[in-house]
Amino acid sequence: MSLKYAVIGTGAIGGYYGGKLANSGREVHFLLHSDYGYVKQNGLKVDSVDGDFHLRSVLAYNKTVDMPKCDVVLVALKSTNNKLLKELLPPLLHKDTLVILIQNGLGLEADLQKDFPCLGIAGGLAFICSGKTGEGHVGHFDGGRLNLGSYSCSDPKILTQVCSDFVQAGVEAHIHELEKARWMKLVWNIPYNGMTVVMNTTTDSLMNNPAMVELLHEIMLEVIRGANLVGKGRFSIPESYADDMLEMTRRMTPYSPSMKLDFDFHRPLETEYIYSRPVLQAREAGYEMARIIMLKSQLQFIETRYLYT
Amino acid sequence: MSLKYAVIGTGAIGGYYGGKLANSGREVHFLLHSDYGYVKQNGLKVDSVDGDFHLRSVLAYNKTVDMPKCDVVLVALKSTNNKLLKELLPPLLHKDTLVILIQNGLGLEADLQKDFPCLGIAGGLAFICSGKTGEGHVGHFDGGRLNLGSYSCSDPKILTQVCSDFVQAGVEAHIHELEKARWMKLVWNIPYNGMTVVMNTTTDSLMNNPAMVELLHEIMLEVIRGANLVGKGRFSIPESYADDMLEMTRRMTPYSPSMKLDFDFHRPLETEYIYSRPVLQAREAGYEMARIIMLKSQLQFIETRYLYT
Repeated sequence: MSLKYAVIGTGAIGGYYGGKLANSGREVHFLLHSDYGYVKQNGLKVDSVDGDFHLRSVLAYNKTVDMPKCDVVLVALKSTNNKLLKELLPPLLHKDTLVILIQNGLGLEADLQKDFPCLGIAGGLAFICSGKTGEGHVGHFDGGRLNLGSYSCSDPKILTQVCSDFVQAGVEAHIHELEKARWMKLVWNIPYNGMTVVMNTTTDSLMNNPAMVELLHEIMLEVIRGANLVGKGRFSIPESYADDMLEMTRRMTPYSPSMKLDFDFHRPLETEYIYSRPVLQAREAGYEMARIIMLKSQLQFIETRYLYT
Repeated sequence: MSLKYAVIGTGAIGGYYGGKLANSGREVHFLLHSDYGYVKQNGLKVDSVDGDFHLRSVLAYNKTVDMPKCDVVLVALKSTNNKLLKELLPPLLHKDTLVILIQNGLGLEADLQKDFPCLGIAGGLAFICSGKTGEGHVGHFDGGRLNLGSYSCSDPKILTQVCSDFVQAGVEAHIHELEKARWMKLVWNIPYNGMTVVMNTTTDSLMNNPAMVELLHEIMLEVIRGANLVGKGRFSIPESYADDMLEMTRRMTPYSPSMKLDFDFHRPLETEYIYSRPVLQAREAGYEMARIIMLKSQLQFIETRYLYT
């Protein structure tokens, strides 16, 4: 059986992963917002370090009521827009549809499940440097790995098939335990997303400053210690994983994380799921993430200044 | 006996306190740098909330070798320039000269004493909002209290006389235990100096953001807890002092602390004495000031960017 895909949010993430699937011959229906007219007419271009491609004819929509019911819905919205899912999803769902939230942070699936108690939900963590470089145009600069994990899939075979569809499309995809995978991704996101905003800079310039690298390392250790308390008896992340993340970032192309781009374009920041929820979960497990709370307060100060003035 | 004063560093602090003494009839010799020619010709103007005054004829110098030996030397340099004192001070010193470091931070007196083992040294903490508003022109916007304390005065009577000279000059001056007074001043300086730089803002805008006020409060508590461990058995600061500082700042005129002005004008930041030394002393007492270390790393990142690029 061939799965029918929908992509909600065709930006740097949805455009890339949905584009890869479509480019490998899968049926993919894309929901677009500002780029709808352009993509309908000109298609979707992906300039990728793994090889450029151009989807000349794209199944493009600007409202989900026009879209068919799909087997898999890839959600690649900014998590600040997840409140829209309550309206956006229903037209796409049949009784076995799997919704995969390719977003960073904690608590995303639980929040969605509240609105759709019977829905099968999974999560996806994208280890990728990509960006929207123009109308219907995505740049892919580094990485690309996608870690998938079930939250409430009734049939695990669907997720396995999604994973294998991605692999066939040239994406390095794996299935992991979701909660651990989300925390592991946060070991990168929490220090780099916030600090590039507060310091108004890119990853490489942070990595060139030894005192800053030490601070980033301390913040990573806070994430890992919080994770290990929350996951006690279920999963554990070794502290050495922080060193791996530092080393990976040092070798990475100079990069503005998505939150830095949101800041640059004066969009709301994804602080809720990336900062507030982890802080809350760690606190409930008895651990106060002092540095992360500080970073979160600084982000909220910055955001208030540009969003409400 | 009437004391003869010298002021090293005639800026927002030295210009104000030295100016008040001179205006009350004391003999005050001012060392100036960039404003020397202007002040020699036009004198020194202080626009003060307590009443403006203009010293038309000022004992102005541009090198200490031209200055007379003095009984009291008020040092109001940026602490980043304290290495200059080894050269600047000797011409001003007789065997009983008292040097008062009107500067923020910890370890200033100890460092100076290393270069001048027999010198009588005191410290001064200025609770004032003032700024250089032009050539030979100081603005005094709020506060003005000066807390003095002995570090190695051989004759305590001199410091008492200095204190009374200030009081006669219209300055609210007190004598305190120096180490405690320095830590108490840091309860304000550590959060506000650093955070106005990192957030690129003024005190009032920090105080208008509830999450930021909470963070500033946490940072103040770190200072107080560090102080109380370092001062164990000698002094103690109640945690409620943090609330007093928040309340004072809320009532204060919107203000750019000196470190924010240093940042604005791309001058070196006084991180060594205001951040590194307190962090080190607290660490030696067994307390890790996590948030303060984070703020210090952010400041050093910012400073490196503008000083060395």
